[in-house]
Formats: sequence, C-alpha cells, structure tokens
Amino acid sequence: MRETTLKQIAETLGISITTVSKALKNYPDVSAKTRVAVLDLAEKLQYTPNTFAVNLRTKESKTIGLIIPEVVHHFFSSVINGIIAEAEKNGYLVIILQSNESVDMEKKQVELLLNKRVDGIILSLSNESNDDDHIKEIIKRGIPFVQFDKIAKLISSSKVIINDQKAAMEATEHLIKKGCKKIAHIRGPVNPQNAIDRFLGYKKALEKNNLPFDSKLVYTCKNVTFEEGKEFAKQIIQEHKDIDGVFIITDLVAVGFLAYCNENNIAVPDKIKVIGFSNWFMSQVITPKLSTVDQPSYEMGVKSFELLLEEMNARREMLPFQPKTIELNTTIIERESSK
Amino acid sequence: MRETTLKQIAETLGISITTVSKALKNYPDVSAKTRVAVLDLAEKLQYTPNTFAVNLRTKESKTIGLIIPEVVHHFFSSVINGIIAEAEKNGYLVIILQSNESVDMEKKQVELLLNKRVDGIILSLSNESNDDDHIKEIIKRGIPFVQFDKIAKLISSSKVIINDQKAAMEATEHLIKKGCKKIAHIRGPVNPQNAIDRFLGYKKALEKNNLPFDSKLVYTCKNVTFEEGKEFAKQIIQEHKDIDGVFIITDLVAVGFLAYCNENNIAVPDKIKVIGFSNWFMSQVITPKLSTVDQPSYEMGVKSFELLLEEMNARREMLPFQPKTIELNTTIIERESSK
Repeated sequence: MRETTLKQIAETLGISITTVSKALKNYPDVSAKTRVAVLDLAEKLQYTPNTFAVNLRTKESKTIGLIIPEVVHHFFSSVINGIIAEAEKNGYLVIILQSNESVDMEKKQVELLLNKRVDGIILSLSNESNDDDHIKEIIKRGIPFVQFDKIAKLISSSKVIINDQKAAMEATEHLIKKGCKKIAHIRGPVNPQNAIDRFLGYKKALEKNNLPFDSKLVYTCKNVTFEEGKEFAKQIIQEHKDIDGVFIITDLVAVGFLAYCNENNIAVPDKIKVIGFSNWFMSQVITPKLSTVDQPSYEMGVKSFELLLEEMNARREMLPFQPKTIELNTTIIERESSK
Repeated sequence: MRETTLKQIAETLGISITTVSKALKNYPDVSAKTRVAVLDLAEKLQYTPNTFAVNLRTKESKTIGLIIPEVVHHFFSSVINGIIAEAEKNGYLVIILQSNESVDMEKKQVELLLNKRVDGIILSLSNESNDDDHIKEIIKRGIPFVQFDKIAKLISSSKVIINDQKAAMEATEHLIKKGCKKIAHIRGPVNPQNAIDRFLGYKKALEKNNLPFDSKLVYTCKNVTFEEGKEFAKQIIQEHKDIDGVFIITDLVAVGFLAYCNENNIAVPDKIKVIGFSNWFMSQVITPKLSTVDQPSYEMGVKSFELLLEEMNARREMLPFQPKTIELNTTIIERESSK
C-alpha cells in the first residue's frame, strides 16, 4: 500500500519514485519546491513517511520516555541500566531526558514525550517539583506511567519505591547500636519526599532509643554535593565537639564528609562514626570504606519497566489496569566508617 | 489557522470542538470510532496534532538526539551536562540514548532519531562499532551531525576530540620523568580508535626515551571495569616483579589496580607508580589519590553542541556548511600515585 502511494505521487507529479522517496526522507539533493509538492500530496493521500505518524492509530512507537533528575548519580545510572535491559528484552527503545533537578525543564520534557507519542513514561521527580499539573496531564492523556524513587504520592500511578523512613531509621539505629549517643544528620533539600522521609526516620530512631532530638544537629543540603559534605563536616565538628555519629542523606555528601575528616586528622570511626545512603560504587573504594544503605537501584529500573509494560499491554488490549506500588527492600552495609 | 481547522472538523462531523481536540490528543474518553473519524479528516485537511509533523516543512523540532555508549561513566555524564547546558541556552531539548556499547542498539537508535526527525544528532561510537552504514545514513539524510570522543575518522562530519596519542605519550613520559624504567600498559579493547591511539602514545613515549617496548607488558581490557583493574594488577605483579610504573586506559580500571595494591600491601607510588586517564571525580577521593590525564569533558559537550548549532543554523538558512574538527587540550594531573 505504501508502494502504491509512492507510485501514485510520482505519477501525479511526473517525477521518479526515487525522487519521491528522497523528498520524503528530506535528502538534500531534492529541490525545496519538489519536496513541498511531494509532502503536500503525501499528506492528501494520507501517506506519511514519519514512523511516528504511521502509528497514529495503533499508537505504538515501541519507544518509552524516561525523565530523571541527573544521570551523573550512580544511583540513577544504575536504574537506567535496569530499565534499558528490561526494555531491550521486550523490544522497546528508551529515550532519556535529564531534568537537571529543574521543574521547568521537567515540564517541557513531559510535553515533548507526549508530543512524540511515546508508548509510556517512567519518571523520577526533580527536587524542585512542587506542582504536578504536567504529571496530571500524563494521566489525563491515558499514557501508561510509572514513578520511581522521587514520586508525587497523590498521583494515582504505578510506583516503585523504597521505604525511605524505615531505611533511615535502620541506618540511625545502626549508629546507636555501635554506641553513638549524639548523632547529627545531614539531610537533603526541603522539598523532595525522600529527604523528608529520611529525616523522619532519623528522628524516630532517636525517639525510639530515648536519645534527645536536637534540631541544631540537623544540617540541610542545598545541592547535595561533595563540597557540601566537606563544609558541613567543618561546621558540625566546630559547633558540636562531642558529636560521635553522623547519618548522611547520600554517599556523595558522606564522601565529602570523610574527605574533610581525613584532611584534618579526625578519626573515623574512632571519634565519629559515619553512615551514608545509596551504596555508590565509590563508597567501597575510599578510605575508610563507607557504611551505607544499599538501595536496589538496578532492580528498581527492572521493576519500573515491568510495571510500565503491564500497563502498556493492558492498554493495547483495552483491558482495565489497576496501578500498583512495589516497595523494594534496602539493606544496611557495614564497612569501616562505622566499625 | 489551527483553530479554523478544528472548527471545520467539528462542524463536518457534527461533534464539539472539545471532542475534536480530545480525539487529537488521544484522550481515553473519546470513542475509537470518533477518534478514527477525526484523525482521518484531520489528515485530509492537513491538520496534524503531532508537533513533529506540524514541523514537517520547517523541519524544526527544537530537539536534538545524543547517542552515547554509557551514561554511568563520569566522563560521559559530564559531556551530557555540557551539551544540555548549551542546548538549554539555545532553546533545544536533548534526547539521550544509551547504546550500551552495542552497535546493534546504536543502529536502532540512529533510525529512531531519524524517524523522530530531530534537528541534529551528536554521537560517540560504541566500542563494538566497526561498520558505519548507519552513520553514513545520517550524512545522506543531511541531518546536522557531530561526533565526539570515539569517532569514525573517515566520516565527514564535525568532530570534537582530544589528541589521545599525544595525551597518552605525555602520561607515559610523566612516569619516565618520575624515574620509571619498566612501564606496563593496561589498554582498552581492540576496536575503538582512542584505545589504539593511547596504546600508540605509550609505545612512542618508550621509543623516544630509549626504553625497550615489550608486548608482554601490554594487557588488554575487555570490559574496562574496576574488576579488570584488580585482576590485571595481580597478573602484572606476579608476572613482572620489577615493574615500576603502569599507565592505565582509564581511571575506573586504575582505581581497581590501586585497590589490589592496597589490599596486598604493594606500595604505590614507592614500588609502582600509577597514572590513569579521564580524571574521574573518584580519583581525587581515593587513597592514594590517582594521577591522571584530565579530559575537558564538560567543554567537549559545550563545543559539540556549538558545532551542531552552527550546522543547524546553516541548514535552516540554506547556507553551505563545512564540517569542523575541534581538538581540545588535555592536562597531566599529578597526585599521590605517581609522586
């Protein structure tokens, strides 16, 4: 049928099929005039060379979109690998968009994916996200949608998460079991739910173990960087000489904390015990090796794609689909920094 | 004009403009029958809701595609950040595709980007790439195209590169200046040009300094991993007890090498001096801190986008464009591992 249309266009315009084909593919050796004529006629004849538009009715592009805050994070890289591996097995390509933790960027990217008509979207919210109209738009359009890690709780979609509060509680209790009595917390930014939950887990662990909570011992990251880890280490050690433990929002910041301690001869774990979160690759190669909470990031990617696939399949078959939430287990990894 | 068409469709089919609009956006609350009717008529009237197809003539989607072997590498993450920053300034969105070092995946991704009609493509070849028909197809279609880092030399396109041979020569000479007489090289896989060039740079440095080249001192990575670094460290030290220096294809492998030395009490830099390549973030936080070759990865991203933009602008204005090659400078970073 495609062939027939190509022939029809060629005959109508009195040019060769090759020229028609080239014009449709935007080859530069076809004149602009010919190209416009071919495109006009192709549209009239409902022929469109755009793979995308060809699938306007079946609505399948075998492509999914993935929006993440930052690829440089070991955690996200590992999630990406899980998603791609599972997508490839099922014949899907993955388009990755990096929001750079900006909600404006995230909005544009959602719009782009909706316009490009991907079959489904997987997203982890930017730290800035405090408005969810663009997320609601995905749901309204009926596009299969999975949120992971940093999620909008109130949006009804499939979700793959860990229990941040429980994991943070376990990390803090790990320090308490090791004998720490005065534990500081370097927390994530104010907005993201996982930073809030980890902070609450820290607080609960203190309460449960009859240790006083002191808001002065809580330091809030803005950018969640190595440098912030170093700065906070300096501040914490100057302001509270008797601190004997620190629970830190993520390994990158914890590695900064350790770097300051190494440079200033502050003994970890003898004077201060440190535990991070995420189990970055780096954490096992530095000195002292960093204790941390292992997040099953690769599995998070695999499960996210699996849930998306279930929804895409249901939608294709016009079957009802009930969003699911999968909660994955975390594990405390004890290394040298909290021995 | 869009409005007029919407009205026209609504009146012709005897439905509301809202329903037309919803049908075009694939809202699930419009029946399949109505949707098909709307889409059919929309196509006849040359109205298309696909942002993409709307731009069929101007051919601008304000989106570019980026294909890279792996996002988990610090180097590529940093290139991505450079590209995105520059793209954002100029109002472009970046679609990222990860080839996982597979040429099959890379081919599918090129096809996808061509079908989705991005305005331009930036690519770094997978290690497996040994056939370039898909790359030639980009050129044939006249899509603005920039290669960076791992390039197909014979393809006429803009390129952003470093001089791998020169950089490797400088790294090896750095070890020679520090007094090393018997230097091993852990090289990258057989295929990629940059692994070949770095090997040649190592060889040239030995020749220039009248040190004998011995192919038994060259070890070839398959997967370029931390684990390979550890394994090769063991092999090298067992097989050549008098090795006093190692130049390693990339920091990740070098960090594995150092981990083996640390675990087995082999003194770096006293017994063996080590230099890596790429200047990963990790290299400055491990013990001993790793000497390395700094590649300007962020700048590589910025320059890649700049060249692409030049070509996209030229193409829009129908002006001729001459591909350019930008070679960025590398720097030897001396840290503890080669002191």
